Amino acid sequence: MLFMVQMTVNPPMHLTKEEFESVKVAEKNRALDIQRQGKWPHLWRVTGKYSNVSIFDVDSNHELHELLTSLPLFPYMDIDITPLNNHPSALSE
Amino acid sequence: MLFMVQMTVNPPMHLTKEEFESVKVAEKNRALDIQRQGKWPHLWRVTGKYSNVSIFDVDSNHELHELLTSLPLFPYMDIDITPLNNHPSALSE
Amino acid sequence: MLFMVQMTVNPPMHLTKEEFESVKVAEKNRALDIQRQGKWPHLWRVTGKYSNVSIFDVDSNHELHELLTSLPLFPYMDIDITPLNNHPSALSE
Amino acid sequence: MLFMVQMTVNPPMHLTKEEFESVKVAEKNRALDIQRQGKWPHLWRVTGKYSNVSIFDVDSNHELHELLTSLPLFPYMDIDITPLNNHPSALSE
Amino acid sequence: MLFMVQMTVNPPMHLTKEEFESVKVAEKNRALDIQRQGKWPHLWRVTGKYSNVSIFDVDSNHELHELLTSLPLFPYMDIDITPLNNHPSALSE
Amino acid sequence: MLFMVQMTVNPPMHLTKEEFESVKVAEKNRALDIQRQGKWPHLWRVTGKYSNVSIFDVDSNHELHELLTSLPLFPYMDIDITPLNNHPSALSE
Amino acid sequence: MLFMVQMTVNPPMHLTKEEFESVKVAEKNRALDIQRQGKWPHLWRVTGKYSNVSIFDVDSNHELHELLTSLPLFPYMDIDITPLNNHPSALSE
Amino acid sequence: MLFMVQMTVNPPMHLTKEEFESVKVAEKNRALDIQRQGKWPHLWRVTGKYSNVSIFDVDSNHELHELLTSLPLFPYMDIDITPLNNHPSALSE
Amino acid sequence: MLFMVQMTVNPPMHLTKEEFESVKVAEKNRALDIQRQGKWPHLWRVTGKYSNVSIFDVDSNHELHELLTSLPLFPYMDIDITPLNNHPSALSE
Amino acid sequence: MLFMVQMTVNPPMHLTKEEFESVKVAEKNRALDIQRQGKWPHLWRVTGKYSNVSIFDVDSNHELHELLTSLPLFPYMDIDITPLNNHPSALSE
Repeated sequence: MLFMVQMTVNPPMHLTKEEFESVKVAEKNRALDIQRQGKWPHLWRVTGKYSNVSIFDVDSNHELHELLTSLPLFPYMDIDITPLNNHPSALSE
Repeated sequence: MLFMVQMTVNPPMHLTKEEFESVKVAEKNRALDIQRQGKWPHLWRVTGKYSNVSIFDVDSNHELHELLTSLPLFPYMDIDITPLNNHPSALSE
Repeated sequence: MLFMVQMTVNPPMHLTKEEFESVKVAEKNRALDIQRQGKWPHLWRVTGKYSNVSIFDVDSNHELHELLTSLPLFPYMDIDITPLNNHPSALSE
Repeated sequence: MLFMVQMTVNPPMHLTKEEFESVKVAEKNRALDIQRQGKWPHLWRVTGKYSNVSIFDVDSNHELHELLTSLPLFPYMDIDITPLNNHPSALSE
Repeated sequence: MLFMVQMTVNPPMHLTKEEFESVKVAEKNRALDIQRQGKWPHLWRVTGKYSNVSIFDVDSNHELHELLTSLPLFPYMDIDITPLNNHPSALSE
Repeated sequence: MLFMVQMTVNPPMHLTKEEFESVKVAEKNRALDIQRQGKWPHLWRVTGKYSNVSIFDVDSNHELHELLTSLPLFPYMDIDITPLNNHPSALSE
Repeated sequence: MLFMVQMTVNPPMHLTKEEFESVKVAEKNRALDIQRQGKWPHLWRVTGKYSNVSIFDVDSNHELHELLTSLPLFPYMDIDITPLNNHPSALSE
Repeated sequence: MLFMVQMTVNPPMHLTKEEFESVKVAEKNRALDIQRQGKWPHLWRVTGKYSNVSIFDVDSNHELHELLTSLPLFPYMDIDITPLNNHPSALSE
Repeated sequence: MLFMVQMTVNPPMHLTKEEFESVKVAEKNRALDIQRQGKWPHLWRVTGKYSNVSIFDVDSNHELHELLTSLPLFPYMDIDITPLNNHPSALSE
Repeated sequence: MLFMVQMTVNPPMHLTKEEFESVKVAEKNRALDIQRQGKWPHLWRVTGKYSNVSIFDVDSNHELHELLTSLPLFPYMDIDITPLNNHPSALSE
């Protein structure tokens, strides 16, 4: 089941540069884990913004929530979710 | 070069049901053509809306404009475009 | 899997009063069907508006889309969907 | 008398992690109390957000205000309230 | 129980001037009825707009909905409702 | 001459709890003064918000500005003003 | 007592060109009348829009409402009103 | 050449009360200077807000920018600019 | 003096296809005229929209208004205007 | 390939005046570099705002992202990007 997820990072002012860098390293590792599990099939950077467009492939809303809240940057992101369906004019997918 | 394109259809009131159906058949054919050319790698339906989320893979803004305006539903759609980049935390793409 | 669905009806100007009444009768019958299947556990009227707040309980985004587009009023409604989860502070549900 | 209440938490920057955790424990206890009184029949987490969708069942606006302002997280939440009615197409409720 | 109700009239294009005038006469009569019942204690015109600010005093959301939908202009109005409480700094009310 | 005034308090982060409490005591006293002068005939709490809906009855915009800026909470409030008129369908007022 | 009034004209689709021209001639005459009475001291065109910025000088909200609703274009305009005061840093006015 | 300029002050949290007062004194002096030069013919306070509506009369966009950025409060203001023209229905101006 | 002008065309429903085509031919001719006079140095199509981004170089707001309202598509366009200045970091211009 | 880029600077509160000045010097140098490479053909100041309107001429979204994120002010700017095309009515470009 597919969801488009748009995440925008608001860098936290109360963390030092070093603390924030270590959150970003942890974020990248967690993001790679979720992708390796096949749950996050697409992840694109929005040009010119600290923001991404993602497609998640999950079994339930519950699983999606668990994955998103497991991201180390979760407390510093605005997240919008759009439930997706197959499109009748799509060649495949 | 990737772009996210969000299209929402506003069904035209001044067309008869038959006219609109034939526009939609033409739309589907054109959409399949563009997908077969590899220019429109993803096309999803937004759940509960007459709207889609698409990823286009084109050589230029010019090509994207030509493809979008070639769609028979173009005059009846609101279109939003977001330029995308590879993401540094993406496993691949 | 739960979704909050907010529907607002925009009465169609090109239908006669009789045509619109018959759409509304069909809508009510379809709404009762879906509720009887246990797929639409809550349906409330928004006070002072031609609008409702609903909770759907479905197996997938696909099923939700099929149910919503099967409603006779679907072409005349604005629909917003919010995916829901169990809440850790909920007594039950 | 039913109201839909949407609450979004803005975690307070001036509290320590420990202080905020103890506010959250108090919040959960108060939320369970109100639910046990039958005044808060539904409480759902919004997927991917620090936000909930709730249904309150109260005798008056006054009672609703007293319940909401009694929540320990009240000073840190944006709250939107929608008065609800029975829906003429609802199977029951 | 008090509610602020803001109503804005969108004059219907498909009615003749005479038809719309007769709706407005019926509206005024119904508005006076509801006021005489003590259910609509305040009704003000918004300066420079075809819009009003009202205070309703009702027993329930249900009663408010019944009163608002009984207005002949109801199908041609945007309506916003704000539940009100007594204010702790109010001299009386 | 009537104006609807909507005030929302944004509690100031740079004041201590005690300082803010003393501002609120001063606010209540000033609000009661203005009400006793007959200049602030209605003051309601918005349910579930740190916000009020008020009706002021003043001789001029100037007087309204003087009254609002004399409130101790003025620096911490968002204020919206709507000029009102008698309504032709009002029973009286 | 001064008010800034912003008016935007939405040309009515159901009038013929001739009917609309005659409304505009009547509008201009009424606007000149009100200006000659000293009630509308400033009237500017917004560059590139069918819209104006005006300053009205009236005795009351009531008088402002009477003047605005007497304009032949009133039914076809969006109107926003901002109450103004003398400014403490103004050289005069 | 006329421009409507709307300025809203956001009092800076990082200045002391004394520092901010001295900025405001400097602002008033600069505002009076510009008015004496005939470049700022109208300056009104928005009722109930820390905000003004102004008319500037300048030779160019460049001159307007120089004047606005010379204001001591410039770093603490949101500024909106609307280019104005003579209005064909204005008595004069 | 430079202005950014953003124009979006709303194709008029009450014109026949032929009438609208002839308006568009007239528009193109007028646009070329203004460009040849050096008053409209840049004109770009917004990708995927019936909309343009333009830079006008004019002597006054008055001249800009005259040029924009002389466009045959003027009655069918939403127009936004942003006054521009030389930028202190620009290499030239 | 052309893009309109609108950048608005939000001066960072946690930098000292000297630190921020040195960021601005670095910004200007980097901006001049990119302009000298022919990648940033137009850069205008928005009148009355700490904001610019720019045209970038790049080979890809990737290159645009690299250029924008190389700007020393990047962490302190809101950036909006609009893909542009040649316009069929443009004299040249």
